[in-house]
Amino acid sequence: MHPLLEAIAQRSSLNSFDPQARLDDSTIHELIGWASRAPSAFNLQNWRFIAVRSDAAKQRLRQLAWDQPKVSEAAVTFILCGVLPDTDQLPARLQPSVEAGFMPANMPSSWQQAAKQLYADSPRARRDEAIRSATLAAATLMQAGQALGLGACPMTGFDAPAVATHFGLGTDEIPVMLVAMGRAAPGNWPQKPRRPLQQILELA
Amino acid sequence: MHPLLEAIAQRSSLNSFDPQARLDDSTIHELIGWASRAPSAFNLQNWRFIAVRSDAAKQRLRQLAWDQPKVSEAAVTFILCGVLPDTDQLPARLQPSVEAGFMPANMPSSWQQAAKQLYADSPRARRDEAIRSATLAAATLMQAGQALGLGACPMTGFDAPAVATHFGLGTDEIPVMLVAMGRAAPGNWPQKPRRPLQQILELA
Repeated sequence: MHPLLEAIAQRSSLNSFDPQARLDDSTIHELIGWASRAPSAFNLQNWRFIAVRSDAAKQRLRQLAWDQPKVSEAAVTFILCGVLPDTDQLPARLQPSVEAGFMPANMPSSWQQAAKQLYADSPRARRDEAIRSATLAAATLMQAGQALGLGACPMTGFDAPAVATHFGLGTDEIPVMLVAMGRAAPGNWPQKPRRPLQQILELA
Repeated sequence: MHPLLEAIAQRSSLNSFDPQARLDDSTIHELIGWASRAPSAFNLQNWRFIAVRSDAAKQRLRQLAWDQPKVSEAAVTFILCGVLPDTDQLPARLQPSVEAGFMPANMPSSWQQAAKQLYADSPRARRDEAIRSATLAAATLMQAGQALGLGACPMTGFDAPAVATHFGLGTDEIPVMLVAMGRAAPGNWPQKPRRPLQQILELA
């Protein structure tokens, strides 16, 4: 089986992590470097990552996440923040693509116009985009973790306003997901069975 | 390099697809089978996929997506729908895990209570969850596509209400993303440069 398919087949959301395992900061840097290569609309890269890896910070986050043990037992629990799109920042985000020689010099400003059209006067469109971007980054983070022999559990059961306050998120930042990551302990479940294809797929 | 990291490094959002390439329905079935193995909160699997692969349907979708040629030139453009969580359906979604022998029989109802707590009285929490689930499925779909030698472009620039109407989405379904997928034509850009790590990562 192709390794990319094998990874999908073997992935499951961990509940039990080896609480002794740690990730050093250089590994965290490497993981977030990979996560940041996820796609985002207009290459806005509207995300920020908080790697919660000290005992004190993990305990505090665990309290804000229904006291779920995996938050503190995982080596690191990442807070994936989506950022509300700010189209004023788009030219700077795209300038490296111009400098790399493949993007025409006038394209950042035309993309900026398109982005303004998409997000202007629509707080919901901006929030949706923040959630999509952070979620795509979460998926890429978990894929990179698998490559490093690490398991993960994406979590949405937490007190989002309290997490935003305690961890100092900006007013334009949304805590979209927690991703607990570390070494699997024994006793995790296999991947759960899925709905049959005929319930979820339509051909047009 | 580990194949999972190589896939992250080599992925880029395609703009040019081979317009002659097609995907047969069995390949579409296979791709969506893999996509459905993405994680979702409580294993709700709150997603639905419309594979737009006929010429007429692709042309119509393209008109609703800023007339972007890749929508019709890709072999298939998938509409990734997120479904607003319906906690009444959760026991049925988890029953196969009970029958498989690893989930205790009383757990679906306790998860249902937790899910009700998370989503009750919060239309925004339900919408956010629909967007997260469909986006995780989109990431897994693109990973499976890479395994099959296919490139992709995730897209959020489309008229969501019009897509929902034209393709008959239910009132609980949100068109979260389009994913154009097919064989790459020559001339696509490389992956765009990313922001430096110090702008996006905080250690706690």
